[in-house]
Amino acid sequence: METEWIKWLRSRVGTELLGDDAAVIGDTIITVDMLTEGIDFLLGRVDPQWIGRKALAVNLSDIAAMGGVPTFIVVAVALPKSEGIQLAEQLYNGMEPLIQKYSLTLAGGDTNTWDNGLVISITVLGRVTPQGVLRRNGGKPGDKILVTGMLGGSILERQFLFEPRIFEALYLNEHFDIHAAIDISDGFSLDLHRLSFESGLGAKLYEQSIPISPAAVRLSQQTGRTPLEHALSDGEDFELLLAVPPDEAEKLLTTQPLHKHFNVILYPVAELTLESGLRFTDGTVLLPQGFEH
Amino acid sequence: METEWIKWLRSRVGTELLGDDAAVIGDTIITVDMLTEGIDFLLGRVDPQWIGRKALAVNLSDIAAMGGVPTFIVVAVALPKSEGIQLAEQLYNGMEPLIQKYSLTLAGGDTNTWDNGLVISITVLGRVTPQGVLRRNGGKPGDKILVTGMLGGSILERQFLFEPRIFEALYLNEHFDIHAAIDISDGFSLDLHRLSFESGLGAKLYEQSIPISPAAVRLSQQTGRTPLEHALSDGEDFELLLAVPPDEAEKLLTTQPLHKHFNVILYPVAELTLESGLRFTDGTVLLPQGFEH
Repeated sequence: METEWIKWLRSRVGTELLGDDAAVIGDTIITVDMLTEGIDFLLGRVDPQWIGRKALAVNLSDIAAMGGVPTFIVVAVALPKSEGIQLAEQLYNGMEPLIQKYSLTLAGGDTNTWDNGLVISITVLGRVTPQGVLRRNGGKPGDKILVTGMLGGSILERQFLFEPRIFEALYLNEHFDIHAAIDISDGFSLDLHRLSFESGLGAKLYEQSIPISPAAVRLSQQTGRTPLEHALSDGEDFELLLAVPPDEAEKLLTTQPLHKHFNVILYPVAELTLESGLRFTDGTVLLPQGFEH
Repeated sequence: METEWIKWLRSRVGTELLGDDAAVIGDTIITVDMLTEGIDFLLGRVDPQWIGRKALAVNLSDIAAMGGVPTFIVVAVALPKSEGIQLAEQLYNGMEPLIQKYSLTLAGGDTNTWDNGLVISITVLGRVTPQGVLRRNGGKPGDKILVTGMLGGSILERQFLFEPRIFEALYLNEHFDIHAAIDISDGFSLDLHRLSFESGLGAKLYEQSIPISPAAVRLSQQTGRTPLEHALSDGEDFELLLAVPPDEAEKLLTTQPLHKHFNVILYPVAELTLESGLRFTDGTVLLPQGFEH
């Protein structure tokens, strides 16, 4: 996830960090995310396995957005004293399927207990492929923006159980011309804004074809906001936004190569424009909405 | 620092983690440590810069114990809402001198705010030198154990302001035959036990020549425990214990090469024995003491 910390530190340290989901050092990709009780999850309301799974999956999603191959992870946790080692086991059990699926090596960790809430911080290393990394800033005017799944309402469940788009990103980066990518962590419109802004562009939304998840519809019945509003701003969908040239987009949308391999459908959701900012098809301006850290 | 988490996960994941201060993956070293408010520091009682410094320095000490060159760091923090971004700045200001001194690159981070205490988790990557890594398990019977500084009483101040022995370890590993190393994070006798145990050996302590720090003497006046007891068990000295062959030890103790370059004096504190466990020179057994996670 994008962080103020990085932006602020970038100015202090003078490193060449671009506004990306992870840092690239030679052929190594590195990313860290910390989840905290009460902000990212409510302990006692969620299966602790889901928390462990999510703590790893959000990092894997960042690696996916870079088109990288995840390799090693290190895990640091602060456990509430009242919970004890059982909680650590449950957290790990939630990670294990992802560790298996992506052949990750758990290279180290640090366990602490204290009188406060649960904190879990995972650092994931990844490898750059011969195709190079995907970045946010590679979008070109006229590029179509595709998304790897439906949006909105993730708070109901998907925020914990989403599948990081690792294989999908690797497949697309190997077989197609992908100009830029970002994962939707903080909100579709906010992350679309980031991609277009980093590319020096704006975006025109195809509001009619944005795939609205059933969860967004269900949630709208509770909140009174429209399903589209949820899809635009909910965040934690952890789908990828991909900027691709129009002819490549046409090919991808027609052949849907991810469907055969991964049961994933690509949807067109916007196009990049020389005009900055986000606009609907009728020209009205959309202010980016989502979770700002 | 040694963690139960690693030991426990090792059995689950089947990775080839040795009992070392950091994991080695090809020519990369990786280590993580998390500090938590109320356990590792008391916010309001300690300059926040010291907390930031320590969070980085404990990781650098792990890299030093492996004889590695630290390169990249990523930082994740959970900030109490009441404190805000000023605290993040202070934490960073505490890290900056170490970042400069060791030419580290801050490669990424994640900032969170929540209603609980301060948590800071740092992952440090390092590089293996042509001399290879130092490990805990390389000690041989008869090896002398040397320590890079005085022990005990670190809680008074040194736990925050210690200097990680990066350059010292690199210098020794390049110019001398070092069989094994560990940093004293959890207590001299406990970490000596770990080194000797991992080497399949025990150790005889030279209790007369253990360098007791002035802080251990001061602390003993408050606690009623002897200065030696503090030196044996206090922990967080972050000096290195080094296992070296007797002739090499003789040379090191006579010429004191670290004194000229780094103002560091080596002291002989024990020797490795075929007999397991820790013993004083008169044969009485010493149970390892220190902080168990």
